[in-house]
Amino acid sequence: MEEQALLYEGKAKRIYATDDEQVVRVQYKDSATAYNGEKKAEIIGKGRLNNEITSLLFLKLNEAGIQSHFIEKISENEQLVKRVSIIPLEVVVRNFAAGSFSKRLGVVEGNKLSRPIVEFYLKDDSLGDPLITDEHVDVLNLATAEEVAELKEAALKINDVLSGFFREIGVTLIDFKLEFGKDADGNISLADEISPDTCRLWDMETQQKLDKDVFRRDLGNLTDAYETILTRLGGQQHV
Amino acid sequence: MEEQALLYEGKAKRIYATDDEQVVRVQYKDSATAYNGEKKAEIIGKGRLNNEITSLLFLKLNEAGIQSHFIEKISENEQLVKRVSIIPLEVVVRNFAAGSFSKRLGVVEGNKLSRPIVEFYLKDDSLGDPLITDEHVDVLNLATAEEVAELKEAALKINDVLSGFFREIGVTLIDFKLEFGKDADGNISLADEISPDTCRLWDMETQQKLDKDVFRRDLGNLTDAYETILTRLGGQQHV
Repeated sequence: MEEQALLYEGKAKRIYATDDEQVVRVQYKDSATAYNGEKKAEIIGKGRLNNEITSLLFLKLNEAGIQSHFIEKISENEQLVKRVSIIPLEVVVRNFAAGSFSKRLGVVEGNKLSRPIVEFYLKDDSLGDPLITDEHVDVLNLATAEEVAELKEAALKINDVLSGFFREIGVTLIDFKLEFGKDADGNISLADEISPDTCRLWDMETQQKLDKDVFRRDLGNLTDAYETILTRLGGQQHV
Repeated sequence: MEEQALLYEGKAKRIYATDDEQVVRVQYKDSATAYNGEKKAEIIGKGRLNNEITSLLFLKLNEAGIQSHFIEKISENEQLVKRVSIIPLEVVVRNFAAGSFSKRLGVVEGNKLSRPIVEFYLKDDSLGDPLITDEHVDVLNLATAEEVAELKEAALKINDVLSGFFREIGVTLIDFKLEFGKDADGNISLADEISPDTCRLWDMETQQKLDKDVFRRDLGNLTDAYETILTRLGGQQHV
């Protein structure tokens, strides 16, 4: 295999070209970052865990009728996905108050919201990914009103299905972040990753955090937590 | 007149009871504050100017068919208003990018938006009055969906009328903040104040700032700027 061009390097992943221009290779890194890159660490095994968990969840979502950019896992820390152009919105779904929601709005972490809500954040590290409203999305030309409606509907449907997956394995889906991409024809599909890096996952019985808050808040061993999620989801365990 | 009970003291105003329990007296203070109280000053004449400007604008809005809590100006720095319970939302209308909008979203100050937008901020000093979305308003039980629609419609109508008033006197209404109150029957009316403390007002020809940014950004004499607005609006000049 000849050297493939690095198309993009983010905080947690590298994206490479493939021989098929409609397909890219995603390589999950062992880097952990938090607070918009202010806190950083290398954590051996994190890339593999997120690649395996994301692959599993995208496959399970696909079985439940939710398409994503995912094609297949090709190695421990790599997967092939369809090439899409990422919509510059972080789409967050919240079932319970936690994290920035609790801090900004003064709501106790762990309080159940009266209904799931969808939030948009402008994907721009230099601005610190600020929360934006639907009217901001409009005047900043980030998406049309129809696309906003489609993104919200998709996010809530994914929430229903994902919450079910996690409930079955004794985990509460507190909140999570999605990204969506558009293909050349303008069709929107789920993209990026779904992993303990992008979800808050609490053990239903013990309320133990099994997600990146373990790193953000120095609560213990990150890979133990991620390994617990992978194992419960039925993924391959590496002992 | 016997001593009347102080009901509330804010950063810029004091509210006193009157003999009529449906009416309160608003006293405008000479205090200027910015950045959620981090920057403070006493500016002689500011209370009078804001009282006069607010009284003038509420009268003019009333003539244009927009009701508010305003009853009458009773002294240089005092007015009588109907007693309402303030909805804990700061309702901001923006015609041009400026201030926190520019800073948070990376848009050059002075850029005209493709259309006026309405934003809600949670009125809570301890949280720094954070921006919130319609879904936050709902799950935090701050207002019903019908009330949100009513507030947005009222804010945009007020924007049309106010923009016209200011255009006539050679001033661009960049953005402004409104507060609304509910009476005992649940009727919503415009409340609080409309003044250079709560509006961004730029001279149409020179782009000179004639509002609280003069204080926030140390751009010169605040009362000169406010006096310019009052005089152009046809109010009494105190030389």
